[in-house]
Amino acid sequence: MRLFDYLDSGNGYKVRLLCAQLGLRYAWTELDIDRGETRTPAFLARNPNGRVPTLELDDGTHLAESNAILWYLAEGSALMPATALGRAQVLQWMFFEQYSHEPYVATPRYIVRHLPADHPRQAELPERLARGRAALEVMERHLAAAPYFVDGRYSIADIALYAYTHVAEDGGHTLAPYASVRAWLARVAAQPNHVRLLDRPTEASTAP
Amino acid sequence: MRLFDYLDSGNGYKVRLLCAQLGLRYAWTELDIDRGETRTPAFLARNPNGRVPTLELDDGTHLAESNAILWYLAEGSALMPATALGRAQVLQWMFFEQYSHEPYVATPRYIVRHLPADHPRQAELPERLARGRAALEVMERHLAAAPYFVDGRYSIADIALYAYTHVAEDGGHTLAPYASVRAWLARVAAQPNHVRLLDRPTEASTAP
Repeated sequence: MRLFDYLDSGNGYKVRLLCAQLGLRYAWTELDIDRGETRTPAFLARNPNGRVPTLELDDGTHLAESNAILWYLAEGSALMPATALGRAQVLQWMFFEQYSHEPYVATPRYIVRHLPADHPRQAELPERLARGRAALEVMERHLAAAPYFVDGRYSIADIALYAYTHVAEDGGHTLAPYASVRAWLARVAAQPNHVRLLDRPTEASTAP
Repeated sequence: MRLFDYLDSGNGYKVRLLCAQLGLRYAWTELDIDRGETRTPAFLARNPNGRVPTLELDDGTHLAESNAILWYLAEGSALMPATALGRAQVLQWMFFEQYSHEPYVATPRYIVRHLPADHPRQAELPERLARGRAALEVMERHLAAAPYFVDGRYSIADIALYAYTHVAEDGGHTLAPYASVRAWLARVAAQPNHVRLLDRPTEASTAP
């Protein structure tokens, strides 16, 4: 299979981290989102929504949305809960991540790292950071009573939330008030076969 | 089980529609989001993220996030694809719905219907509607070649996307340019045991 991705994407990193921990091999094509490489006709034929990560399966089917890719690759593994309720709770946290967390933790990081200091979108930062703090509070409250998000065990829910939380400070957040979140980040980073966000996959290829 | 909900919520409606079509019975408690009833200490104990719908299971566990609730209730039913890839594609469309569609199709409807005409958030409408059109284009492109979102069959992916698409015009969208989307809306509305957004559940109870 082949992952279309961008190295600094936390959403892409989720898939890279899971593949490393499940021992899954993949080819890797990097697209530069800042240069519009996810909006070309060739890439829109793979994912009409024009986003990375997008996974091309061996039969040529494409699967988009980072958390759907995590789900597909983790089914039947130790990183997926065994019970129906546990699986639903994984999804609850993954939808929380995409709706209540990613726009307010990941997007500020994008604005700070990828846009010029005088870009009009800089004005979005205060509101986005406020909503991001609300998401971090929800995580803190949960993690004060549990070592991981679901069933007390490391799962793809943790991978989904780790990806942008561990670099939240890049976008202007401070994690100092969230002691339980910081302890959980350390537990996730200590899992076997952990890789880091900017670790370039060894089988990397580049976009034509 | 008991559903904490708000009648005009499309996210809540997803769950009501699925329950009607699977023949699932539930008690129903309405919380008025405009009066802050999802931000009380009592409700935050049920869902720390303070959102409806939230489902209370018979053992007292709470499950939040509309699409995670759909997944939990539909597992093993005819509204869930039988293959791992089909299930992942359902999730792909559900994550698309929450990330690329709901903020730009549902939120304009909220702004128009629930906020005063001079509210500062009215200024968000042009940008949100533009992004909503992009999401509707993605749907149109898919539905031009397929009757439903996954495997050519009605599934919870259709329920998730129907909920706010069918009332998109309430928020200022026009569906006129999207012929395939409109044909799909009609197919969804013609499914057996369909209920409408504002059909009040018969076992309704109200918040104290």
